[in-house]
Amino acid sequence: MNLILLEPGEVGPDAAISLPGTRASHLRTVLKVVPGDVVRVGIIDGPMGRGTVTAVATDRVELRCDFDAVVPERPRVDLVLALPRPKVMRRLWAPLAALGVGRVMLTSAERVERDYFGAHVLDENVYRPLLVDGLQQAKDTRLPVVSIHRRFKVFVEDDLDRLCPDGRRIVAHPSTPGHAGRSVAGALAGIGTHASAVVAVGPEGGWNGFELALLEAHGFTTVSMGPRSLATATACIALLALVHDALPQG
Amino acid sequence: MNLILLEPGEVGPDAAISLPGTRASHLRTVLKVVPGDVVRVGIIDGPMGRGTVTAVATDRVELRCDFDAVVPERPRVDLVLALPRPKVMRRLWAPLAALGVGRVMLTSAERVERDYFGAHVLDENVYRPLLVDGLQQAKDTRLPVVSIHRRFKVFVEDDLDRLCPDGRRIVAHPSTPGHAGRSVAGALAGIGTHASAVVAVGPEGGWNGFELALLEAHGFTTVSMGPRSLATATACIALLALVHDALPQG
Repeated sequence: MNLILLEPGEVGPDAAISLPGTRASHLRTVLKVVPGDVVRVGIIDGPMGRGTVTAVATDRVELRCDFDAVVPERPRVDLVLALPRPKVMRRLWAPLAALGVGRVMLTSAERVERDYFGAHVLDENVYRPLLVDGLQQAKDTRLPVVSIHRRFKVFVEDDLDRLCPDGRRIVAHPSTPGHAGRSVAGALAGIGTHASAVVAVGPEGGWNGFELALLEAHGFTTVSMGPRSLATATACIALLALVHDALPQG
Repeated sequence: MNLILLEPGEVGPDAAISLPGTRASHLRTVLKVVPGDVVRVGIIDGPMGRGTVTAVATDRVELRCDFDAVVPERPRVDLVLALPRPKVMRRLWAPLAALGVGRVMLTSAERVERDYFGAHVLDENVYRPLLVDGLQQAKDTRLPVVSIHRRFKVFVEDDLDRLCPDGRRIVAHPSTPGHAGRSVAGALAGIGTHASAVVAVGPEGGWNGFELALLEAHGFTTVSMGPRSLATATACIALLALVHDALPQG
């Protein structure tokens, strides 16, 4: 926990905060704070700042905070992800938030089991704390916006332009004779300093021909990360790292 | 499982193989093979090839194989990793093998708990099948060579040059005023077509000053992956993706 994130409602008008639960126990037992210590804090979707510890009790830590005037920018990468199986999805929430994504759009695909959409791990009460963990690791306040799309064709044709009106679109697909695939950097070459990207990652086994053609018809360039076939979680992390690296810093 | 990996001892002189266990049940229940089908096979640290199914029984699948003349090259990236906690290490074996590493050198550091070196997950009987899983995912046969180094200073001063005589050395470290850090691509610029890299990833909380200075004194260039602080597993996957992407393809 490199940053203590606060819910907007937790911050009083005088910027005094009384933290309960795991954040308090992290401050007491891991950071071993005493009154007068300063810790990094942030408000979810708000500014970062510094919190001065004013009191340490067995079940609570009290802070007086001083927030920056500016709010961090939203990450410039949005992710379209064919919903992986629940165990994989559960482990992916925190890394996605840590790497930095503006939106996570979970979609169906031929090779996605329909049951996955009923999984507990798509309940906001389950995934939101995991996203917050990732932000606290990465020192960011901007919570990814999550949406769930059970019909791939409807999502691509009717929802995508509204959710992601801007941004260079790329889809990761293993290289095959018919779809050699450019590199990530090649597909993002010449992108503007403040431009964003939308990246699509398919299911285990890949998008089918119809899905890939529909994405390409909606502006996605096929990219390849080389001949090695990666599991969904590894592929997502690798691709987000390459895309962030290829986006020019403003 | 995109490739069925065989132990060298499993392949008879006539290239006939009788597969038991999980590989047989994968062939029967996931790939639903019948006699005459051809599947991708490989021998650990040997060639890849094609296996023609000759018989399917309830507990075994028999194949006759035809192997390539050449053995895949070893991945051109070696990893020095400050040993993470056992739960993280367990989940990292398969992605490391899938992304492609020649060697995995696990080392101590000030911020590595000594107990971690006693973990079950450092038993070859535990990690080897996980590495094999990663290779089967990525369609490679070259098993990473694993070594465990409980004394960081001895490792860097006495063992590293012998284990990794060649290769551009880079160490990932969060950017700080004293160590701004170059980009991965910058640190690998101008590297030869067949050259390799050695990448070092520190513990949660980073290398301490002594450790970083010792690595730099032994030829490591400090690189940064940007301002976001990543958990060990995410950092490893992201860094390996960037390094593989930056190495020129021969």
